[in-house]
Amino acid sequence: MTVSAALTALADKFGEQLRTSQSERDQHGGSETHFNPIAPDAVFYPNSTADVAAAVTICQKYKCPVIPYGTGTSLEGHTLAILGGVSFDFSHMNKVLAVNCEDFDVVVQPGLTRRALNAELRATGLFFPVDPGANASVGGMAATRASGTTTVRYGNMAENVLALEVVLADGRIIRTGSRARKSSTGYDLTKLMVGSEGTLGVITELTLRLHGRPEATAAAICAFDDVADAVDAVIAGIQSGVPTARIELVDSEATRAFNLYGNTDMPEKPHVLLEFHGSHTAVDEQARLFRKIAKDFGASNFEFATKPEDRDALWTLRHNAYYATLALRKGATAVVTDICVPISKLAQAIDETRKDIANSDIPGPILGHVGDGNFHAILLIDPDKPTEKDTALKLGHRMAQRALRLGGTISGEHGIGVGKLDLMADEHDQAWQVMGAIKLALDPHNIMNPGKVVRLN
Amino acid sequence: MTVSAALTALADKFGEQLRTSQSERDQHGGSETHFNPIAPDAVFYPNSTADVAAAVTICQKYKCPVIPYGTGTSLEGHTLAILGGVSFDFSHMNKVLAVNCEDFDVVVQPGLTRRALNAELRATGLFFPVDPGANASVGGMAATRASGTTTVRYGNMAENVLALEVVLADGRIIRTGSRARKSSTGYDLTKLMVGSEGTLGVITELTLRLHGRPEATAAAICAFDDVADAVDAVIAGIQSGVPTARIELVDSEATRAFNLYGNTDMPEKPHVLLEFHGSHTAVDEQARLFRKIAKDFGASNFEFATKPEDRDALWTLRHNAYYATLALRKGATAVVTDICVPISKLAQAIDETRKDIANSDIPGPILGHVGDGNFHAILLIDPDKPTEKDTALKLGHRMAQRALRLGGTISGEHGIGVGKLDLMADEHDQAWQVMGAIKLALDPHNIMNPGKVVRLN
Repeated sequence: MTVSAALTALADKFGEQLRTSQSERDQHGGSETHFNPIAPDAVFYPNSTADVAAAVTICQKYKCPVIPYGTGTSLEGHTLAILGGVSFDFSHMNKVLAVNCEDFDVVVQPGLTRRALNAELRATGLFFPVDPGANASVGGMAATRASGTTTVRYGNMAENVLALEVVLADGRIIRTGSRARKSSTGYDLTKLMVGSEGTLGVITELTLRLHGRPEATAAAICAFDDVADAVDAVIAGIQSGVPTARIELVDSEATRAFNLYGNTDMPEKPHVLLEFHGSHTAVDEQARLFRKIAKDFGASNFEFATKPEDRDALWTLRHNAYYATLALRKGATAVVTDICVPISKLAQAIDETRKDIANSDIPGPILGHVGDGNFHAILLIDPDKPTEKDTALKLGHRMAQRALRLGGTISGEHGIGVGKLDLMADEHDQAWQVMGAIKLALDPHNIMNPGKVVRLN
Repeated sequence: MTVSAALTALADKFGEQLRTSQSERDQHGGSETHFNPIAPDAVFYPNSTADVAAAVTICQKYKCPVIPYGTGTSLEGHTLAILGGVSFDFSHMNKVLAVNCEDFDVVVQPGLTRRALNAELRATGLFFPVDPGANASVGGMAATRASGTTTVRYGNMAENVLALEVVLADGRIIRTGSRARKSSTGYDLTKLMVGSEGTLGVITELTLRLHGRPEATAAAICAFDDVADAVDAVIAGIQSGVPTARIELVDSEATRAFNLYGNTDMPEKPHVLLEFHGSHTAVDEQARLFRKIAKDFGASNFEFATKPEDRDALWTLRHNAYYATLALRKGATAVVTDICVPISKLAQAIDETRKDIANSDIPGPILGHVGDGNFHAILLIDPDKPTEKDTALKLGHRMAQRALRLGGTISGEHGIGVGKLDLMADEHDQAWQVMGAIKLALDPHNIMNPGKVVRLN
């Protein structure tokens, strides 16, 4: 009822920008992972911040849910229309508005993808480092506080978003942060919005921090006899202060997936992939230092990739990891887990997780941004067997509890969405109630991506 | 009335932990800068989080203001009891609770000072880098989102606080964040609390990020003919990606203050002080690169200080800058300004500020963490001449407006307190109202350091 009134008002105002065909709705109601699709009632394509503000004002009037949509690559059901409403698709708001080379920053619209951004920056000598694998939109990456392979060196979205423009639930447009590198002027609303998954407001513009392309880049890969050795080598590397731009762990099962998908012939052992950024001297020094440490832990097949094409081949493998592992089991869908622990607990966390997976009948290759203490098991399930999904979700739940027991967090980078709501009280206890109080203060009618992150009574 | 009832209840419960002598009150009602003292009604010395929670619960019951107090070194009147109430002095809660060397983190109580922390860490090879000059408490540093000389390399408090324990206005104890390096589990309450100046809750425990002591450290100093050349050299250094751990500008008047106070004989010209951290090779390379750039901008008297005692002498000078500049004018007090702009606007911001100061009769040496685009003019006023204070405050106000015009912020690191409340709407517009809504949601009776950061109607 209320939603239909909102759709009428939106259609009156925006005409063709509002779409209600089944195919449009279905396209926006899916998920990359195991969640059952739940389509929105309509899809709205804003062209400007003013469009967003006007549409949110209408939605607020009729208490119609607003679900921001980037590329739909999130992994915890963030864009599912669980209470119906309108998906705000930002694909038409995908411009670079200003590149400030001298200040290493860029002002962009939320629908821009990270690859399109880096393509636009190619001539500047600068780049945007945050790299979650998928070619996500920067708005979505900010909303989920994404990170990825380069976080160990360049930080996650929290550290790389300088300022935001946000439309609030009541249609007000606010600006948070500035182009200054730091500020002590009250509550950090930028960092409050980053990671709020669209539940506090809709991001309509972002000022992102850029980094200088390193003078030199070297990539390396090496194999270990077992995961524990690989993890111990990574920990030793981090602790001895070797600065790496990427340190990724791929277990033997994921290596097998890479071989099958990418037509490579790596030994089916755990591998560590690394990248070093800096001056030529520094990169050489770092790579040599890490090799020495890795050899102490029994690393074999240590290979450097200094040519851009070899490096690209290496990282393309890693970027396709999700699809490569999916291909390990024909017709499978995935429960993708995501925990992060203090680095001293990483070996234990991975070891316990591997044993737990081995005791199930579900394949579960492990990949990790191990420099951050963050790893994923990709649990491959037969979508036609509900018991498998149940088993996988329970494995994921135990992983999350394990992370908490070891002083870590239930999500390193994928976020909460609907998939991890049940774990929020376990991680945050009373602090989750505080999140709810903030949500209520900014969105009293609970129209902004309702049912995600917090639970309101 | 309400405050006196609170004091009675607190005295009943805590005995000698509550002090009401005039001298105690006066000690907690002052300010390092130009603000007139406003003493609290009492000073409370908690020994534990439980003490804090119980005392806050009492204060909440009687609507008595709670003002957290570290070392009293804040610069914008953060600890003034403008609505009366109880100063919570954390000097008895100053322990290191756990050092996790493998994870590069430490768990501490808020009353610990940064120097005491680093003294405790000496044997570990790790250090806590944030360095605002004063030997502030880490709780106060978190509350004001402090930064300082090393921010260009290691980040400010926002980037170096991993987790907090906070007592809320209703006495609930929450934990925010974890020891994991990153997390995507809802609203980032840690970063909301950092910089909230005690207005959302009282910090009772902090988990701080540590960094490995660099293998090699080199410091350098050089002189320039004018400030514009110095700033341009810094900008060129930053833009060409020379990694520096510190880049500080000291103008000719501040140099004169250093000479007088520290008994040195530097030429009375603008100086840039630098520090490089890394491996021996990297540090050499960085220092050489910067020297080359500096010489292109006419740098003279380029001196390296690689011996620890020479480096210490250099940075002791910088750390004493505030007291050195104060000593330039006998009996003076200071209006300390603090703006931060995008680095491309730094030369213009400093130039306009210098001209504006030159047009007044007030001495105003300039010092800056110029690698961040952040600088301070220390405006030296005769406390007995109200017109001078008025002139200085107007200069500061124009600096802040200038920062906003240039895309920057009214405070890089000192915070809002009561000193910059009138500028908050200019910087944040509607977003300031959002801060007010968050404050009301978490502290409906406005007892947590009331009158700071936000204004409630």
